[in-house]
Amino acid sequence: MNPPVAIVMGSQSDWETMKNAADTLDSLDIGYEARIVSAHRTPDRMFEFARGAREEGFQVIIAGAGGAAHLPGMLAALTPLPVFGVPVQSRALSGQDSLLSIVQMPAGIPVGTLAIGRAGAVNAALLSASVLALHDPEAALRLDEYRARQAASVAEYPIDKDE
Amino acid sequence: MNPPVAIVMGSQSDWETMKNAADTLDSLDIGYEARIVSAHRTPDRMFEFARGAREEGFQVIIAGAGGAAHLPGMLAALTPLPVFGVPVQSRALSGQDSLLSIVQMPAGIPVGTLAIGRAGAVNAALLSASVLALHDPEAALRLDEYRARQAASVAEYPIDKDE
Amino acid sequence: MNPPVAIVMGSQSDWETMKNAADTLDSLDIGYEARIVSAHRTPDRMFEFARGAREEGFQVIIAGAGGAAHLPGMLAALTPLPVFGVPVQSRALSGQDSLLSIVQMPAGIPVGTLAIGRAGAVNAALLSASVLALHDPEAALRLDEYRARQAASVAEYPIDKDE
Amino acid sequence: MNPPVAIVMGSQSDWETMKNAADTLDSLDIGYEARIVSAHRTPDRMFEFARGAREEGFQVIIAGAGGAAHLPGMLAALTPLPVFGVPVQSRALSGQDSLLSIVQMPAGIPVGTLAIGRAGAVNAALLSASVLALHDPEAALRLDEYRARQAASVAEYPIDKDE
Amino acid sequence: MNPPVAIVMGSQSDWETMKNAADTLDSLDIGYEARIVSAHRTPDRMFEFARGAREEGFQVIIAGAGGAAHLPGMLAALTPLPVFGVPVQSRALSGQDSLLSIVQMPAGIPVGTLAIGRAGAVNAALLSASVLALHDPEAALRLDEYRARQAASVAEYPIDKDE
Amino acid sequence: MNPPVAIVMGSQSDWETMKNAADTLDSLDIGYEARIVSAHRTPDRMFEFARGAREEGFQVIIAGAGGAAHLPGMLAALTPLPVFGVPVQSRALSGQDSLLSIVQMPAGIPVGTLAIGRAGAVNAALLSASVLALHDPEAALRLDEYRARQAASVAEYPIDKDE
Amino acid sequence: MNPPVAIVMGSQSDWETMKNAADTLDSLDIGYEARIVSAHRTPDRMFEFARGAREEGFQVIIAGAGGAAHLPGMLAALTPLPVFGVPVQSRALSGQDSLLSIVQMPAGIPVGTLAIGRAGAVNAALLSASVLALHDPEAALRLDEYRARQAASVAEYPIDKDE
Amino acid sequence: MNPPVAIVMGSQSDWETMKNAADTLDSLDIGYEARIVSAHRTPDRMFEFARGAREEGFQVIIAGAGGAAHLPGMLAALTPLPVFGVPVQSRALSGQDSLLSIVQMPAGIPVGTLAIGRAGAVNAALLSASVLALHDPEAALRLDEYRARQAASVAEYPIDKDE
Repeated sequence: MNPPVAIVMGSQSDWETMKNAADTLDSLDIGYEARIVSAHRTPDRMFEFARGAREEGFQVIIAGAGGAAHLPGMLAALTPLPVFGVPVQSRALSGQDSLLSIVQMPAGIPVGTLAIGRAGAVNAALLSASVLALHDPEAALRLDEYRARQAASVAEYPIDKDE
Repeated sequence: MNPPVAIVMGSQSDWETMKNAADTLDSLDIGYEARIVSAHRTPDRMFEFARGAREEGFQVIIAGAGGAAHLPGMLAALTPLPVFGVPVQSRALSGQDSLLSIVQMPAGIPVGTLAIGRAGAVNAALLSASVLALHDPEAALRLDEYRARQAASVAEYPIDKDE
Repeated sequence: MNPPVAIVMGSQSDWETMKNAADTLDSLDIGYEARIVSAHRTPDRMFEFARGAREEGFQVIIAGAGGAAHLPGMLAALTPLPVFGVPVQSRALSGQDSLLSIVQMPAGIPVGTLAIGRAGAVNAALLSASVLALHDPEAALRLDEYRARQAASVAEYPIDKDE
Repeated sequence: MNPPVAIVMGSQSDWETMKNAADTLDSLDIGYEARIVSAHRTPDRMFEFARGAREEGFQVIIAGAGGAAHLPGMLAALTPLPVFGVPVQSRALSGQDSLLSIVQMPAGIPVGTLAIGRAGAVNAALLSASVLALHDPEAALRLDEYRARQAASVAEYPIDKDE
Repeated sequence: MNPPVAIVMGSQSDWETMKNAADTLDSLDIGYEARIVSAHRTPDRMFEFARGAREEGFQVIIAGAGGAAHLPGMLAALTPLPVFGVPVQSRALSGQDSLLSIVQMPAGIPVGTLAIGRAGAVNAALLSASVLALHDPEAALRLDEYRARQAASVAEYPIDKDE
Repeated sequence: MNPPVAIVMGSQSDWETMKNAADTLDSLDIGYEARIVSAHRTPDRMFEFARGAREEGFQVIIAGAGGAAHLPGMLAALTPLPVFGVPVQSRALSGQDSLLSIVQMPAGIPVGTLAIGRAGAVNAALLSASVLALHDPEAALRLDEYRARQAASVAEYPIDKDE
Repeated sequence: MNPPVAIVMGSQSDWETMKNAADTLDSLDIGYEARIVSAHRTPDRMFEFARGAREEGFQVIIAGAGGAAHLPGMLAALTPLPVFGVPVQSRALSGQDSLLSIVQMPAGIPVGTLAIGRAGAVNAALLSASVLALHDPEAALRLDEYRARQAASVAEYPIDKDE
Repeated sequence: MNPPVAIVMGSQSDWETMKNAADTLDSLDIGYEARIVSAHRTPDRMFEFARGAREEGFQVIIAGAGGAAHLPGMLAALTPLPVFGVPVQSRALSGQDSLLSIVQMPAGIPVGTLAIGRAGAVNAALLSASVLALHDPEAALRLDEYRARQAASVAEYPIDKDE
């Protein structure tokens, strides 16, 4: 059976950003599968993947893309599963194009959009975990622990008091 | 017991936007409760609401705010539940400030952000439905029907062929 | 047989903008067919239309959409025909989102993008005419005349000299 | 006789971007001529080139420029041939000025605008090819093959499964 | 003999903005001639006007245009006279496109750019006056008086103290 | 007793920017305490700090944060002390998100916002000094001297006249 | 003796925005004087006002201006008093120019900047009050009451439960 | 007697940009004097310089500044001489703040604004030369020659035909 999360991205070069989603899911012990699915270069693969995603057992889709980033929105058009979009930082416009192409979806087809770049990829994983945690008490516990560790890791002072 | 979705907003004036989320949940027969919770004017109410949301039985939080829109991100900081943010269109900057204040969250605390304004409110409801549908076959069915009706409602031609 | 130009748009409300393309083609005596094809709400219709467009006899596709405007780029992904995109002016962001979603296509799948709104729709028609005119001397003549009339219509002075 | 495509650019420094258009046309076996034509520094050369382009046998013009990029629009004002514009990435504003100066043409004079920078140059070549392919079955075949190779080159997974 | 200032604009609709330049020159008793010269629709007229402007006796050119506003820069490319550009407020982008298209000229061809819209038109006239005043003591005097009146017209208090 | 100024920041990485505030206060001989308080990762610490700040003896709070920068506004919601916000330069959007998230506060909860990055941090310290100087003649004198030294340090000519 | 707060603005038309600062100070029973001081049209008046502000007994200056808004920064250059800037919403750019012209001050001369428009004017008054409250227990009490009333005025629900 | 052009800048660091204006004037054999005049750090020096500039014999002022760039506009408020502004590229916002702070002057006080950065500095010199050339036939001749050399320096082809 498939893992609950699919991480898809428009091109190999997006992996540098999207692997942060994978690493975060790893640290939460949540299974995922990472695939390259280009809305523009491989539209058939995209259709096939999205149409079959629910039947394949995926519960949440994380989709990252840059520039005129159509992948997250097109996946959301093709599957009823929740889709979380990660705007990959683009070269000329620093991801402003990616962000608007993903977040400004018309009424009817939602994409839950995260921040541009690495932070967005990490957070797409955490948001997926929060969704899965609704019906998986162990995942909920691990997510709570992740957040507690995160809070505890924030130092009190920016400089060592003894310096 | 509480309904599964909380719709919270920073001020009464946000209701004009956020009632689109409520209407959409109504049409999907998904329960919700709508509250005004201002991060800036009622921070204690916000803390109390967010800290108790999971225990109160909420499963998903939809949060709308405009300008320096801190409500969605602060809620996400205070609860492990999934938070979906709706940037309300602001007067001077048309919601560009709302959008960036909501979507550009740092790694660690995710907000799944929807489009600026009405479309975002509708889609926050649909995204919530897709999350709830993962473990509620009837909700899944109603969401599928909603999407099918939506597809069927798109006319073939912009003008009546017989004109 | 089909006319040479297809004018497609994401929703009925785009027609207000896109009818300017139709009117311009009318004035050049170039045939077209106008259809509503939503990338997000009717992805199957979009696939079917785009995959068959060349066989149907279309030579150029004009596609208008607003917000996270994926229609022009997805059509370009699905057909080798030239696709010209018209960013429809959106409510919150005045078409800046539409423009970036259409023009910032990745290398490999081109969309020739026109201006936001009415001017873009007119120009998509003129650009289509210039393409068709390459192998249609009569269309070339009509386009030359259109441009000559346009030049002649520019008054010399902004105010009547005799006032 | 001249090749079908003219690649013109505002300055020598634009060649770094525009050679991607040349390389793409090379890979499609489509002839082109590359020239430097500055709207601002050599307006006479621009006039002469544009006024004679159709008679010289060119069918499509690809024009790249940066900053207050007037070359594509001025060429379109001076020739009925289709003009495709490439916004070259500028230093201070990353090509946002180039993009708006090229795409926001008034009704009457169209420029089919591609993405900022390298992707735009590649795509201007592909769009030119799709125009030429309408009446050149061999070019159409080569373009189809190019697109098929491109689709086939997309890996399934971002990381080697055996790693 | 011609008046010292030429006010040119890309279209009749720009006159609503550019008449503010004319009115300001009137109030300074500086002669001008207003013409419509479209870079895109009447490029020949533009060439002819700009190439002859110095010989015709003009000393300063004020040029207003909107959107992909190429007129000021093209005039500056064609005449050694000082050119002052007025970005006309555009519909979708509020003149941001006009401003960047005018001000971001490459090294070699300058356009002295004023503010978007009415204020820019007034100021183009004042800047022209300050240039003419360098060798016209009476114009200098009138400009000084204009500025003195302007300073004197600023009330001390926003509300009537006796209210 | 606590020093008059608290410098708080959302993460350790903000210190590189915020230490410029500390250095400036040092040079004015004004005491401060620097702490890390993350609105998102340590909301309880933030509440506790802000609620107690007046009682702890702080008079002014300088708060720096980046991206969806909620810290300054949330502190201002929780304390009646003056809060001065420093938008830290963010990676993708260069601090435009930080700026809007801090400055666009709704009516009722003010944050006095400084420039993005280092200049903003220096100026937050100087603005704090100007507030403290209202009731501290010695601080006022030191601030006057600082400003006088600053004025005196501006060279007359950009190049050495003797070169 | 002068009241503690000076409200200055660049033109009469700014009063519509700035009177919100005056009204807010009224409601807090804090004295102020409102003056029109244009950096551009009355630079001498600006110099005189700013140089004498501290001696006149002012403690805080609120300055509002729009477009290329130089007034707040120039006042800050001329007086050691704290200056709080209000970006007035401009016509073409909705106050984005006003905001950047006020907030992006170089290191050395601070302006505490508030939100664009009405909210910024209200908040400039509240921030001034928080500064004055540091040494005026009665003002502190009134500010606390203002904030308490504000919190209490936020309804719990956006719609009447009994509807 | 003073040279005709004053080049002033807000800080030593602006010289890297503004020396391009000086070099261009050198190549046109037009005299200038370069000074550092900070609107914010040395407002008295600015007042004195601007108030005396006409009497000192200057005919044109070139002013460069970055960020909240008030120098060009304040000079224009203090002298009737033509002022040409150069937006220096700023760190966080790449000169967008500099540009808007300079160009968006209110009606009444004009600044002829050039492009951001180096190109703007070169062009401020050329625009000054075109103003001086109106009454200096030798300068006019040198400017014509400069422009002719510039046109002649544009190569015909981006790559060596013999390669």
